[in-house]
Amino acid sequence: MADLLGVAVLGAGHMGADHIRRLDQVVSGARVAAVADPDVERAKDAVAGLAGVTVHTDPEAALDAPGVSAVLVASPGPAHEEALLAAFARGLPVLCEKPMVPDSAGALRVVEAEARLGRRLAQIGFMRRYDSEYRRLKSLLDEGSLGRPLMLHCTHRNVSSPAGFTSAMLVDSSVSHEIDAARWLLGQELTAVTVLRPASSSGAPEGLADPQFVLLESEGGVLVDVEVFVNCGFGYQVRCEAVCEAGSARIGDEHTMVVTARGSAAEEVAQDYLVRFAGAYDREVRAWVDATRRGEVTGPGAWDGYAASVVAEAGVGSLETGGRVRVELAPRPALYGR
Amino acid sequence: MADLLGVAVLGAGHMGADHIRRLDQVVSGARVAAVADPDVERAKDAVAGLAGVTVHTDPEAALDAPGVSAVLVASPGPAHEEALLAAFARGLPVLCEKPMVPDSAGALRVVEAEARLGRRLAQIGFMRRYDSEYRRLKSLLDEGSLGRPLMLHCTHRNVSSPAGFTSAMLVDSSVSHEIDAARWLLGQELTAVTVLRPASSSGAPEGLADPQFVLLESEGGVLVDVEVFVNCGFGYQVRCEAVCEAGSARIGDEHTMVVTARGSAAEEVAQDYLVRFAGAYDREVRAWVDATRRGEVTGPGAWDGYAASVVAEAGVGSLETGGRVRVELAPRPALYGR
Amino acid sequence: MADLLGVAVLGAGHMGADHIRRLDQVVSGARVAAVADPDVERAKDAVAGLAGVTVHTDPEAALDAPGVSAVLVASPGPAHEEALLAAFARGLPVLCEKPMVPDSAGALRVVEAEARLGRRLAQIGFMRRYDSEYRRLKSLLDEGSLGRPLMLHCTHRNVSSPAGFTSAMLVDSSVSHEIDAARWLLGQELTAVTVLRPASSSGAPEGLADPQFVLLESEGGVLVDVEVFVNCGFGYQVRCEAVCEAGSARIGDEHTMVVTARGSAAEEVAQDYLVRFAGAYDREVRAWVDATRRGEVTGPGAWDGYAASVVAEAGVGSLETGGRVRVELAPRPALYGR
Amino acid sequence: MADLLGVAVLGAGHMGADHIRRLDQVVSGARVAAVADPDVERAKDAVAGLAGVTVHTDPEAALDAPGVSAVLVASPGPAHEEALLAAFARGLPVLCEKPMVPDSAGALRVVEAEARLGRRLAQIGFMRRYDSEYRRLKSLLDEGSLGRPLMLHCTHRNVSSPAGFTSAMLVDSSVSHEIDAARWLLGQELTAVTVLRPASSSGAPEGLADPQFVLLESEGGVLVDVEVFVNCGFGYQVRCEAVCEAGSARIGDEHTMVVTARGSAAEEVAQDYLVRFAGAYDREVRAWVDATRRGEVTGPGAWDGYAASVVAEAGVGSLETGGRVRVELAPRPALYGR
Repeated sequence: MADLLGVAVLGAGHMGADHIRRLDQVVSGARVAAVADPDVERAKDAVAGLAGVTVHTDPEAALDAPGVSAVLVASPGPAHEEALLAAFARGLPVLCEKPMVPDSAGALRVVEAEARLGRRLAQIGFMRRYDSEYRRLKSLLDEGSLGRPLMLHCTHRNVSSPAGFTSAMLVDSSVSHEIDAARWLLGQELTAVTVLRPASSSGAPEGLADPQFVLLESEGGVLVDVEVFVNCGFGYQVRCEAVCEAGSARIGDEHTMVVTARGSAAEEVAQDYLVRFAGAYDREVRAWVDATRRGEVTGPGAWDGYAASVVAEAGVGSLETGGRVRVELAPRPALYGR
Repeated sequence: MADLLGVAVLGAGHMGADHIRRLDQVVSGARVAAVADPDVERAKDAVAGLAGVTVHTDPEAALDAPGVSAVLVASPGPAHEEALLAAFARGLPVLCEKPMVPDSAGALRVVEAEARLGRRLAQIGFMRRYDSEYRRLKSLLDEGSLGRPLMLHCTHRNVSSPAGFTSAMLVDSSVSHEIDAARWLLGQELTAVTVLRPASSSGAPEGLADPQFVLLESEGGVLVDVEVFVNCGFGYQVRCEAVCEAGSARIGDEHTMVVTARGSAAEEVAQDYLVRFAGAYDREVRAWVDATRRGEVTGPGAWDGYAASVVAEAGVGSLETGGRVRVELAPRPALYGR
Repeated sequence: MADLLGVAVLGAGHMGADHIRRLDQVVSGARVAAVADPDVERAKDAVAGLAGVTVHTDPEAALDAPGVSAVLVASPGPAHEEALLAAFARGLPVLCEKPMVPDSAGALRVVEAEARLGRRLAQIGFMRRYDSEYRRLKSLLDEGSLGRPLMLHCTHRNVSSPAGFTSAMLVDSSVSHEIDAARWLLGQELTAVTVLRPASSSGAPEGLADPQFVLLESEGGVLVDVEVFVNCGFGYQVRCEAVCEAGSARIGDEHTMVVTARGSAAEEVAQDYLVRFAGAYDREVRAWVDATRRGEVTGPGAWDGYAASVVAEAGVGSLETGGRVRVELAPRPALYGR
Repeated sequence: MADLLGVAVLGAGHMGADHIRRLDQVVSGARVAAVADPDVERAKDAVAGLAGVTVHTDPEAALDAPGVSAVLVASPGPAHEEALLAAFARGLPVLCEKPMVPDSAGALRVVEAEARLGRRLAQIGFMRRYDSEYRRLKSLLDEGSLGRPLMLHCTHRNVSSPAGFTSAMLVDSSVSHEIDAARWLLGQELTAVTVLRPASSSGAPEGLADPQFVLLESEGGVLVDVEVFVNCGFGYQVRCEAVCEAGSARIGDEHTMVVTARGSAAEEVAQDYLVRFAGAYDREVRAWVDATRRGEVTGPGAWDGYAASVVAEAGVGSLETGGRVRVELAPRPALYGR
């Protein structure tokens, strides 16, 4: 048992607590060794009943706690840059929730720090890459029988947005998943963004531009359109259709029990991303634990986190101006290959 | 315009009135020339606004009316034998609603009369043979790429049964459609019937054995099972899955607009057979008019009507005894080929 | 029989011949009275076997032929303006295939001529309004249970484009169907168009911008996106999803027999619009014949033909410049209500 | 870490090796402490790389090995009775693969032994109870909105049967899953079985009666029909439709990526039960480990294993005679409640 991976979890909110539960009960090969949260009671609650865990308010203290050999960052976005740099400084592998760093300048500093280190330590929490349907679609596109992709049609709908959700967050929080998924599915960088505003729904909070329709262009000429509608009222839906030269492939339709009653044949629509993507979160953390124990980083990395930030920033710019905004990436360090 | 087919319609009830409307407004090449119904007011109502139609209470008078060159029998089942024999006596082509004749002895007399005549005049109203989905399934089975059929799984559901519907009518009225469809899809006669009675639904009228589960066996060893449930409450559903040696094919699932709202993705279920099979009735009558004008009979004939009667009678026998009942057909006259 | 509608069909090409067959064999209440085509042999072939039809090379001669009381225009688009004005001059009701008139200036002249006449005579062949799925969607949107529409996502795919198909024709021929459908479904005029060009498929002819992605904006702020891909290779697909404030509704998915064999559960995709929309053409012509015999015009009219021309022209402008082009409509004559 | 559950795995064949991998890599809270197999090399291979595992040829030696506090029986069926009794003798909780004991007399001895013990130790590996779709169906039936169940229509298809598969094994191995699922979904004992033989597929080995159609009757009058077809050639399909008084619910349709290409819109069909039910096996073992650590037995127990044996034996009797065979259960010991 000496080789169980001891993980310091930074942040004990909704997502952090869920990861603590996952490391303890679902994923074999790891254990929670330390937890840090400014709210020490919340941290204690999240690890209640677990043995051998130290509780901290200072993230760096958690990193230095006994038995810690890896880090899971689930604190709010603005705290990520400091946490990542602290992990790098200690040579600790780290799984960092998205966004890696909310602003692209900070994201670039993380990329540069890891490049200076000369080895990869960070994996970013783009968990759709671990969803079985997305993986199936990726395999199909890579395998090539449908020819080159030409368009991706994406839908991203939530029942309702949390309090304080802004028009910009439809782009830089919600659509950031599609930004990463598109880059990954296509194996291409994105080069421009246009955000269009249809009439807003009367079901959305006053002042929120919801839905929005986002157009992403890739370096290979693929056009990606994303309907993002975070107060659609009826369910959580994430769909993607890849239109290729010789066929199309679609994921994300409902596929549950069909109940026929009272004149309709119906399938339930998931209400929550934790339902739709429960398996993806489990697979993501399991893959991270397994790779980390082998001394490898196999998932999306800091470059992916940086690129997503730049595209999202361009999108917010387009939301404000209504026009098309070009995406300008810094040169890619050799560490991130090509 | 001299060659418009002048049709005498016998029976001006629900089905007869619908056929009159169809001959007048939907199917080109025919016109209603005469109508007969014991209730003369009902007959007059059914042809209100049509020119050149004579109205009768006596079916034979309608057959002899000026301009009549074909007959459509939509009167109650017990009147069919006499109507068919009268049409045969006059050499008139006839489209007869199902059941051709409710009892197999009478059905056999019709077969024998037509065989004596030496040419085919009767087409029986098994309209599923004209439904686009059934035809597609028939084509696929005939074409042979799935290999030999081994089983048919059928569903036949109605929202509710009309007043006076008896347990036997689930077999000899409802399932008679599946009896004909199975014979036609398989190109085989049926050789035995077993009717099973699950617990009856509390939604069915007191004393009605509903649902029932009917097992039909074919001469080639194909097993056909039919769920018949005439008070299912939620819709009209007719489905059929053919299981073959190298694959299966299924028809009859809902396939309408998908409406996603309030947590479910739903398709409407038809409430009525006139909705589900509207196109089939139109195609049936059009095909009959076209063939009749060419002097041909191309649809299901008197032999098919007879065979369905015999199987249905065996089924009613099984419903009463609970056991398996063998089907005994008279020898098939040469007129009906093989 | 004196009231059969005598129709002069202008144009005996693919579409004209199909309409002649339909008037003769499918739609009751009408007959072909005259046909005109510059290629007299083609015209003769199209009416072979029909009685009482005169054949002409001059369209106006056909309009003046005995027994003609209505006109069906199926000649090439550039001949439509003259044909419509000739029908108006004679007070003849006319069903005109789309595009009503290819250029918006000519289309406006038709609108103005009919407005001067002071009564409506023209119906334009936007047959999707007669497709059962589109009608169901229209009913649902009008009925209002899903709230206000915010977006329409449309797909329009063909197996391959005919010889001579140009990049502009994806907009002004293919997408013109979606332009009319959007106006009709929403009950709103369109106000701007943007045409985007993803990478072209290697399956498209050299130089053809295929696929294209067209964005239409409505006066009420609805955003309509259309993927048009006329060399997709695999089938004919027309889909539409209406996203509303309280739910979405989708039409156009495959819905045929499910065949399970060799590791997949598959539904056939139609290869041709005449398969997908066969019922719609029949219903369109039947509705036109019925309304015309009653002295009414109930379908899409000259104003709809004109508006579609203006939007399509703006779309072609956008295709050339890459930018967003505003749609400028002439004032709507009172004849066309509001 | 002292409370990791130490498991002795009996049997290191296909299923045993898979469970060893699962206990080691997938399920947290347990570890493999001992393994037994007559083929010692196979046992060694199955635990290669695992620390702290002893390897045995004698099952009882494995039960007595240090650190063993629970047993997983994955040996061939005939060895199960002895293994279960040995576990009971030591007071060890045990998860036993199905069939619990192949013959009902042996199964009854296990039930009686556990009843004498006075507490439940055995869970039987009916893993469908852990499949998410079956659980959803069970919840829906229990919740009651569809009313009382009247019929279950089941399908159980395999691509091909392993060497040595007999006609009886379609009933007592394949259909035993449906037998347990029906008892569990309905909360009712089964009272009679009839096995029908359609024509056998030419794709099945010579002499194998494949497919078969099995009818099960429940004490509450529910009729359960099962198509079992173990050489269907095209895929692994497990479906169930529950028909209730006020609606029906169907699970098991394909629900993967839809790929549209070459004229069809297709979903992949799983080829293997380990693909279809991978999640169910994981959840089953996780639930067993969790409950065992809490000192509870929550899954299907010895009575369920016994009842399945009796029904399967009746089914094999019906297969031989062609007739309906009644199911006669011993009285249920109080330990198994009601």
